[in-house]
Amino acid sequence: MSFYGGYRQVQEKKPIVQCITNIVTVNDCANILLACGASPIMAEDIREMQEMVSGVSALVCNMGAISFGDSMVVAGMQANKCGVPVVLDPVAAGATRLRRDVASQLLKHVHLAAIRGNASEIKALAGQGTQASSVDVAVGDEVSEENLADVKKFVRDLANKLNTVVALSGVIDVISDGKRTAAVRNGCATMARITGSGCMLTSLVGAFIGAAPTRPFDAAVAAMTAMGVCGELAEEKRVAEGTGTASFRTYMIDAMSLLTKEQLDARAQVEVDA
Amino acid sequence: MSFYGGYRQVQEKKPIVQCITNIVTVNDCANILLACGASPIMAEDIREMQEMVSGVSALVCNMGAISFGDSMVVAGMQANKCGVPVVLDPVAAGATRLRRDVASQLLKHVHLAAIRGNASEIKALAGQGTQASSVDVAVGDEVSEENLADVKKFVRDLANKLNTVVALSGVIDVISDGKRTAAVRNGCATMARITGSGCMLTSLVGAFIGAAPTRPFDAAVAAMTAMGVCGELAEEKRVAEGTGTASFRTYMIDAMSLLTKEQLDARAQVEVDA
Amino acid sequence: MSFYGGYRQVQEKKPIVQCITNIVTVNDCANILLACGASPIMAEDIREMQEMVSGVSALVCNMGAISFGDSMVVAGMQANKCGVPVVLDPVAAGATRLRRDVASQLLKHVHLAAIRGNASEIKALAGQGTQASSVDVAVGDEVSEENLADVKKFVRDLANKLNTVVALSGVIDVISDGKRTAAVRNGCATMARITGSGCMLTSLVGAFIGAAPTRPFDAAVAAMTAMGVCGELAEEKRVAEGTGTASFRTYMIDAMSLLTKEQLDARAQVEVDA
Repeated sequence: MSFYGGYRQVQEKKPIVQCITNIVTVNDCANILLACGASPIMAEDIREMQEMVSGVSALVCNMGAISFGDSMVVAGMQANKCGVPVVLDPVAAGATRLRRDVASQLLKHVHLAAIRGNASEIKALAGQGTQASSVDVAVGDEVSEENLADVKKFVRDLANKLNTVVALSGVIDVISDGKRTAAVRNGCATMARITGSGCMLTSLVGAFIGAAPTRPFDAAVAAMTAMGVCGELAEEKRVAEGTGTASFRTYMIDAMSLLTKEQLDARAQVEVDA
Repeated sequence: MSFYGGYRQVQEKKPIVQCITNIVTVNDCANILLACGASPIMAEDIREMQEMVSGVSALVCNMGAISFGDSMVVAGMQANKCGVPVVLDPVAAGATRLRRDVASQLLKHVHLAAIRGNASEIKALAGQGTQASSVDVAVGDEVSEENLADVKKFVRDLANKLNTVVALSGVIDVISDGKRTAAVRNGCATMARITGSGCMLTSLVGAFIGAAPTRPFDAAVAAMTAMGVCGELAEEKRVAEGTGTASFRTYMIDAMSLLTKEQLDARAQVEVDA
Repeated sequence: MSFYGGYRQVQEKKPIVQCITNIVTVNDCANILLACGASPIMAEDIREMQEMVSGVSALVCNMGAISFGDSMVVAGMQANKCGVPVVLDPVAAGATRLRRDVASQLLKHVHLAAIRGNASEIKALAGQGTQASSVDVAVGDEVSEENLADVKKFVRDLANKLNTVVALSGVIDVISDGKRTAAVRNGCATMARITGSGCMLTSLVGAFIGAAPTRPFDAAVAAMTAMGVCGELAEEKRVAEGTGTASFRTYMIDAMSLLTKEQLDARAQVEVDA
């Protein structure tokens, strides 16, 4: 799958992506899913989770909706039964006992096709200490060229241990399925100045895996590359126009709805270690 | 009531529209209500429903907020007592047992001034089978010039059966109160590429009926025409500027806040069968 | 603290602002916080409130999230223990018994650093009658040049009685800590034509106080001035471009992310009575 191939498959297959996700960014997540060609369902009531999940292409559990941890476990188990891939976003996973408990339950009862989080969240999932007390990555946890080799090893080992694709996003995104490990150098700093960049990215990983369920690593890499490229396109427009962060959000979703093979081919900065 | 008359009445009477609505599009619904001149309240806690509903001009129950089905029934019954018109959006009504149950309760206990849904949702309400498993209309359910006569009859019969205005939205909108039946050919395909077009439309029907409670059919037709025209204006701007779906959303709400009699008169494509 | 000083402190200290806030405007609140340089957390589950609040710079309780009244009390008490300033937005405080009860509980159990509301909401908190039955200010409650002296006295007395900063927003904002009283004449009418202006303003007050916890009056005045100036900048752009209310929302958040000392100095219209 080329980077554009992943995007095109979403447009062709129009996967239905069921998200149990948080009130803050649920609208952005639905809109980025529609922009890339997927069909979003945002339902979280535990009474309809089994039915709702049975007919979808992918399930996204976003722990920002922490009150719906039980729905996530029920939905995740049902998704596993039905062969529906499950993607987890461990929002602020290390911040509270409740979040650690929900994450543990999900890791215990649900096979995850992929996990997408920032470095602090992924570290928390791995049981490593982190200074993060919020939804943002802690300063000491950020990925850089200096610690990239270590982060790659950490992500690969965790992917092996959890038998999933781990997608750690940051200045450099690192994605691994335990065998192959990718570094993606797309994106821009303004993505961290709006809410929802991470949540939208996870939803997108859900859509791409929903369209290519047998190739979760390729799909996750394609999704993160597409998001990063849209971030760059949006930032260039924002700077050219002298606008601010709210315009940037609009431009990024716009870019996803207009993304071309040429844009992706020209901008994708992905290296994969076999 | 001319098509502009419905809009003007909202601007003059500033109806307070209480919505029990979903987390995905609640912000868009509040903003489109403000854009057309109405005053939104988005409250859903069952403990304050009776008080909250007593002072408003219209109540909108959007089944995307399925966890608040009990609040909808309580609010709806209170609205009936107070003479406040109730509008139902049966989001994904056929998708799960929970949604069928909530819809049944509402149809049983609450007199509805209008129901606004897509073809699959309206079919599900009518007890007809549909392939829809999500919030989108199923392929076989879409309205077209070919099946328009059948859809008109279906909508009119259902309006008679339920003693309400049924407003089925799609490529062609079909609205009936059981006596008169309208077809509205405004709107554009991009409306389906953002989340919230349907929810905003239902909120708008609530506002228009709130401003003209004795004429729910005219109000619903005017609301759906206004929304379709705003979709067209937004699409023309989007295409001219080469922007994407997020800009389209902004332009559509903008258009509602700036709508003129001239725009509506020039663009409204409405036919009414007596 | 100059008006720009308050903004600069937020950008330097990057306060973490934990908001228990409503589904309607939570995305806007998170984005305005990020735009001004703060770091938002939007969590409301009572099971994690004590932990979540312990690590933050400020807590905002927005009564639009009325179902989470218990979370607000628990979070507020914990914030008091930890020295975290608490800001209350008494959304529609007078509209229902539930809201009056939650407001009473908060006033009884939590020391508030500031309260930000419209005139009807502040009157309801003060136990005065108001005609407001919704989230909007009632007509008779609006601040004007005519009643400004009375409103100032009312706000100052209430601030003294409640031992907090009271920030009443309207055409003229009136802010008092019981000793000093400020009138801010920034802002524009279009702010009332989008949802979230009030909620964003309260979040901003939280951010500014979070960055300057020992000077809540100065921080509140600076926050309200910054918001008003951003409203003016947005309105000028909106009028120049002939766009509508949704664009205005984007421009206002944009303006907050780009605000300069020059803009604030040139536009701030603040008078303070010692």
